[in-house]
Amino acid sequence: MTRPSHVTLYEVGPRDGLQAEAQIVPATTKIALIDRLSQTGLRFIEATSFVSPKWVPQMADAAEVMAGITRARHLTYPVLTPNLKGYEAARAAGAQSVAVFAAASETFSQKNINASIAESLERFAPVAARAREDGVRLRGYVSCAIACPYEGPIAPEAVAEVTQSLIDMGCYEVSLGDTIGRGTPGDTQRLLEVVLKRVEATKLAVHFHDTWGQALANILVSLDYGIATIDASVGGLGGCPYAPGASGNVATEDVLYMLNGLSIETGVDLEKVIDTAWFISDALGRPPKSRTAVARGR
Amino acid sequence: MTRPSHVTLYEVGPRDGLQAEAQIVPATTKIALIDRLSQTGLRFIEATSFVSPKWVPQMADAAEVMAGITRARHLTYPVLTPNLKGYEAARAAGAQSVAVFAAASETFSQKNINASIAESLERFAPVAARAREDGVRLRGYVSCAIACPYEGPIAPEAVAEVTQSLIDMGCYEVSLGDTIGRGTPGDTQRLLEVVLKRVEATKLAVHFHDTWGQALANILVSLDYGIATIDASVGGLGGCPYAPGASGNVATEDVLYMLNGLSIETGVDLEKVIDTAWFISDALGRPPKSRTAVARGR
Repeated sequence: MTRPSHVTLYEVGPRDGLQAEAQIVPATTKIALIDRLSQTGLRFIEATSFVSPKWVPQMADAAEVMAGITRARHLTYPVLTPNLKGYEAARAAGAQSVAVFAAASETFSQKNINASIAESLERFAPVAARAREDGVRLRGYVSCAIACPYEGPIAPEAVAEVTQSLIDMGCYEVSLGDTIGRGTPGDTQRLLEVVLKRVEATKLAVHFHDTWGQALANILVSLDYGIATIDASVGGLGGCPYAPGASGNVATEDVLYMLNGLSIETGVDLEKVIDTAWFISDALGRPPKSRTAVARGR
Repeated sequence: MTRPSHVTLYEVGPRDGLQAEAQIVPATTKIALIDRLSQTGLRFIEATSFVSPKWVPQMADAAEVMAGITRARHLTYPVLTPNLKGYEAARAAGAQSVAVFAAASETFSQKNINASIAESLERFAPVAARAREDGVRLRGYVSCAIACPYEGPIAPEAVAEVTQSLIDMGCYEVSLGDTIGRGTPGDTQRLLEVVLKRVEATKLAVHFHDTWGQALANILVSLDYGIATIDASVGGLGGCPYAPGASGNVATEDVLYMLNGLSIETGVDLEKVIDTAWFISDALGRPPKSRTAVARGR
């Protein structure tokens, strides 16, 4: 139960955030966003998703975004690759790090990617194999790690099982996502108690949504369990399809403000992140969803 | 370091919340708000403030509000009384519980109430004496318990000193307020470590503002220190005069959602609090400032 002295912030705004926004953002704006983020000290910026534009029209410009960004040294720009086709397109676009996403809820898995959990893992296996051959880093996501919009609470054991499968498949890290932001610190504690029995903290990240306002409290608990990689989204980009107008991903600047106050190093510049939050919020024509960006102002 | 099994939510929306809103709310709306809150299971609803209407025009209707509300059994409706004149007006209006407010920052004390900390305590002494004679419960507030908008960080020792003085004067409880919402869990920890050396947890409450998004994380830390009374404001009523548009008081429903998830009893009904948050937000013509009320919807 010792908090880490250094935390890696894993930025998901350009992908998970913009994917959940109602409006489609032009590639030039996405590129400008990523290039600004590259100057903040962040080391991981999830750039886009190589999925079918039929399913996710917001990410139809994946190759254009990857071609347009200025890749900074020592930075990684992972992309989502749901299958081998996506993986090949991502590699053709120069991706050096990819991610696959599974769910801990059968119903969510069926509705979200039209496959059972087991089928989704089978679909990822060839991606994992190719990534290993190519020396490409593979990350895993587990959605509905606390609750599912269809099934309600999810058993921590189910999350541990999928997490273990993703690690066995070759993921260097698995991010546990509270997709609908329903979890409280009590849920997070129960989840981590179970998952940490099978997977060590260094191989886990947490991915909270602030829909019900619990994200920072959940992150605080996660830090107490030794989790040292936190997913976050600049400006709180993203929404919640199950609660129109509600918050989605926890904002990078809100997390960073807390980590700074806890004297936990991240190497990331708060002021630059807030500037970027205002940049993308202005582009979307609305105020930032984070408390910190609004409190500081422009 | 054991979390309490039961927590008292001390509602400050009608007073601290509405006082900080830009618009002046009619007494009828305030009365309707308090009457609705009385049906939620809350036991403490701070109703108004007997201060000079020259200084706080939002509270000029204090006597009208006190006369208009339907006082429910077993509920307490404390009011703020900065001096003997305010105390007498409050008593004439039927108040059975009053509160005085000091600051832990000299500059804030001067600018806010035009008195040094020592002078403010002298001013409260006759209020405390009369409250004791009358069998009226006296609560104390300490503002700027973590940071001051003028002085920056405030030493925990200064907070402990003022808190001790208020207890010595006869306050049954002192509420430690992070007036500008700047504190992080690290600050809260440092504050409580020092204050708890002089005052026991049962005599303390915490009062966080969510301006920088840290309120729930700070409350979680406070619970770990045994604090069992938490101030909160329905719908996140209130603002921050130092950051226009920013959040003020932490929302009662956000706190309650977290406490429910931690299986901490409060006796308060979340759905009714959210309904009340929507009621007052509609009256103010804007959405609730809480994550929980927006996520649940109307």
